[in-house]
Amino acid sequence: MARSTSDPEVAELNAPEIAEDLEDLALSDDYALNPEFVEMVVDAADRGDIARLRELIAALHPADIADLMGFLSSAYREVLAPLLDTDTLADVLSELEGAVREDVLSQVTPEALAEAIGEMESDDAADVVDDLGDEVRGQVLAAMSDVDRASVEASLAYGEETAGRLMQREVVAAPQFWTVGQALDHVRGAGEDLPDLFFDIYVVDPLYKPLGAAQVSRLIKSRLDQPLSEIMEPVTEIPVDMDQEEVAYIFDKYHLISAPVVEAGGRLVGQITVDDIVGVIQEESQEDMLALAGVYDAEKGASIFGVTRSRFWWLLVNLGTAILASSVIGVFQGSIAKLAALAVLNPIAASMGGNAGTQTLTVAVRALATKELNAANLLATVWRETAVGLLNGVAFALVMGLVTLVWFHDPTMAVVAGLAMIINLFAAAVAGILLPLAMEKMGFDPAAATVVFLTTVTDCVGYFSFLGLATLLLLRH
Amino acid sequence: MARSTSDPEVAELNAPEIAEDLEDLALSDDYALNPEFVEMVVDAADRGDIARLRELIAALHPADIADLMGFLSSAYREVLAPLLDTDTLADVLSELEGAVREDVLSQVTPEALAEAIGEMESDDAADVVDDLGDEVRGQVLAAMSDVDRASVEASLAYGEETAGRLMQREVVAAPQFWTVGQALDHVRGAGEDLPDLFFDIYVVDPLYKPLGAAQVSRLIKSRLDQPLSEIMEPVTEIPVDMDQEEVAYIFDKYHLISAPVVEAGGRLVGQITVDDIVGVIQEESQEDMLALAGVYDAEKGASIFGVTRSRFWWLLVNLGTAILASSVIGVFQGSIAKLAALAVLNPIAASMGGNAGTQTLTVAVRALATKELNAANLLATVWRETAVGLLNGVAFALVMGLVTLVWFHDPTMAVVAGLAMIINLFAAAVAGILLPLAMEKMGFDPAAATVVFLTTVTDCVGYFSFLGLATLLLLRH
Repeated sequence: MARSTSDPEVAELNAPEIAEDLEDLALSDDYALNPEFVEMVVDAADRGDIARLRELIAALHPADIADLMGFLSSAYREVLAPLLDTDTLADVLSELEGAVREDVLSQVTPEALAEAIGEMESDDAADVVDDLGDEVRGQVLAAMSDVDRASVEASLAYGEETAGRLMQREVVAAPQFWTVGQALDHVRGAGEDLPDLFFDIYVVDPLYKPLGAAQVSRLIKSRLDQPLSEIMEPVTEIPVDMDQEEVAYIFDKYHLISAPVVEAGGRLVGQITVDDIVGVIQEESQEDMLALAGVYDAEKGASIFGVTRSRFWWLLVNLGTAILASSVIGVFQGSIAKLAALAVLNPIAASMGGNAGTQTLTVAVRALATKELNAANLLATVWRETAVGLLNGVAFALVMGLVTLVWFHDPTMAVVAGLAMIINLFAAAVAGILLPLAMEKMGFDPAAATVVFLTTVTDCVGYFSFLGLATLLLLRH
Repeated sequence: MARSTSDPEVAELNAPEIAEDLEDLALSDDYALNPEFVEMVVDAADRGDIARLRELIAALHPADIADLMGFLSSAYREVLAPLLDTDTLADVLSELEGAVREDVLSQVTPEALAEAIGEMESDDAADVVDDLGDEVRGQVLAAMSDVDRASVEASLAYGEETAGRLMQREVVAAPQFWTVGQALDHVRGAGEDLPDLFFDIYVVDPLYKPLGAAQVSRLIKSRLDQPLSEIMEPVTEIPVDMDQEEVAYIFDKYHLISAPVVEAGGRLVGQITVDDIVGVIQEESQEDMLALAGVYDAEKGASIFGVTRSRFWWLLVNLGTAILASSVIGVFQGSIAKLAALAVLNPIAASMGGNAGTQTLTVAVRALATKELNAANLLATVWRETAVGLLNGVAFALVMGLVTLVWFHDPTMAVVAGLAMIINLFAAAVAGILLPLAMEKMGFDPAAATVVFLTTVTDCVGYFSFLGLATLLLLRH
């Protein structure tokens, strides 16, 4: 008998192997979702082959299903979403964000949503409920168990992007007079009531204030009769209203794995673990990078019109500053009419100032975010940046002077181009370091919109110094 | 008797309180080092008051001592470095980076260094040894114990920024036939030979290949007679030569706490924990952000001349492209001589193209780094970005046309300014999305130097379309 995959016995024997093959196929070598796999999903959906779709989804980790949702259009998401079981839906929803999540949320029944939310950790659950429209939110909350609903509502009571939102309410706590053995017995007895995964047992006083933390790995290395108070280590308490960026800074700085979250009176109300922080760090540094380029959150997963609108405003502000800078050129229109070569060289000092200023600005924004720049080294930093600006100004004045001489055979014009370069690279350095410091001082995000102010300064100073000096030195007669 | 702090009895009673006060004083509300505290250190060093310096240092976490080193000049570091005990020196060196670390390394004796390195985790130890000059490295390695030296040399054998460098060689492994109780007994017996902190026990086959991992928190929740194979979960194996950026991507995507590192044959050789990854994520996203602005690693902690030199090259490339763009204006010098107003409006479309292109570019660089952009959604993304470019092009053509009409009362010039805007915002979108994709495809970092190419395109197209159309439509006669 010839081997054939339609032979039921052979097919059965091969079944685990076939599943394995799908898993291999799902991801490319760099652990990103394989485009061919996405093709297979689209094909199966087009054919309406639900059994095949289930098989394909089963081969994916929830994080990859979330990626898949991002790659598909809404019509395909609508086919896939109802095929996810409760646990998978819970995991996938926790992974999704922005417009894609909102879309998937709209494709699941309130009852299925309520069940899935009940399976999530309290921070993820609150996040998802927060994303629901008012009407659906009411239906979902009504369909949830009392305990789940109370937990979600308690999380939502904390402000967005605070420690209270980020924390999970599930913690393991023990009184300080317990021994290692008592703590281990308690954990083994409590079983399912504990967090899925935890790294520390918090030692608390009778008022439930944290006194320290016993690392679980330390716990299992210790003698059973040793008191917890002997093996516990000091903890860094996170106030429940602390901004998540601040929480991430503390985790990164002190290499924390988990930290207790306390309310105003010092009572333990939850914990934050480092795996939540990884996401926050990614988010915050992305935000800075995108804000410097004038791209905002609103854009995530938005439609073409949404993205166009979101970018329009930043570009409109830039148009305003470009027109302002051009009006500086307008002042010297008479000079240009006499000597058109000025219009050719005019953009160079301005462009160099923009680039040099952006270097300084970006370094300052990063240093402020990582707190490497503060009052202790403020003057030294300002001095360093302006010195760098002046030195490069002199260097490029020589280069530019030489280029001008070769290009236009006019020594005076070469001097003008060189002087404009020194002036503008100095101005760029001063603006590049002082603008973000001033924004921070006034309580604004030093990354947002600062580039607009910077290029306004470098364009105006660049045009004014070059055309002004040219008018003075070349066109006096 | 009057209370006085010089009274020895009172002073002793207050001692713990005073130490506590110093700790409070050390950090400001935002957990950054307090500038006043840095002042106190400088004052004590100026007075040569070593006892006071020791007291001040004792109030600081090693991460804060590292920050302090960054704020101080080399002369002060030289006073502080020898005051650190072995454990603190080890922790501080692990925290430091770049030029500041090299400076501190040069201020400690090879013997003290050898001892401190012996206290570090293997990844940190290799990092520090790698930073030493050849001569000192020989002395330090000679002063180390055979075990420590072998461990450092094994780590250094792996390439920089690979999983092999990032991992610690210390792991807890157990055969699959063990029960929970046996694993716990083993850990309690091994005591000090185990890693300080661990989150998983890796279950291995007789060839030491990982079969799964039992989370420590799961372990202590389970019955003692349960086999490890029942509670273990699948692991994501990290090949020892994987790039650290890739490792960070996997940790972030699958929310890993720790992962086994395997060599080519699949044998377990170490583990990477999420606290190492937090640093990598910070580093990699900083690198992208700084690279987009033309700021490079070389600059970290460098002198004014070092920073000037590091930025010089980027600016020189930019000067080249600015001159190239200006030569486009040069082609139309005759047109400008006839109508100087062209020089006034000329920079606007170019500037808008630069800004719009940078938005697109930044979004593309982030999407590539987080693998949200790949072959599966390539065409859709390119289409979306060019559509956004065209839409905003039309919107700003209207705005710019109106502005030109009001400013120069010339309808034809308004049409020229509007058309140039559409053409350049479209070109900016195409360049902004295709340039990073092309860089990635050719194996280059899509963040590095791409902005230079982009602004070359937007400047040249901006100038050419505006001045070209003006010459054609306004100056035909």
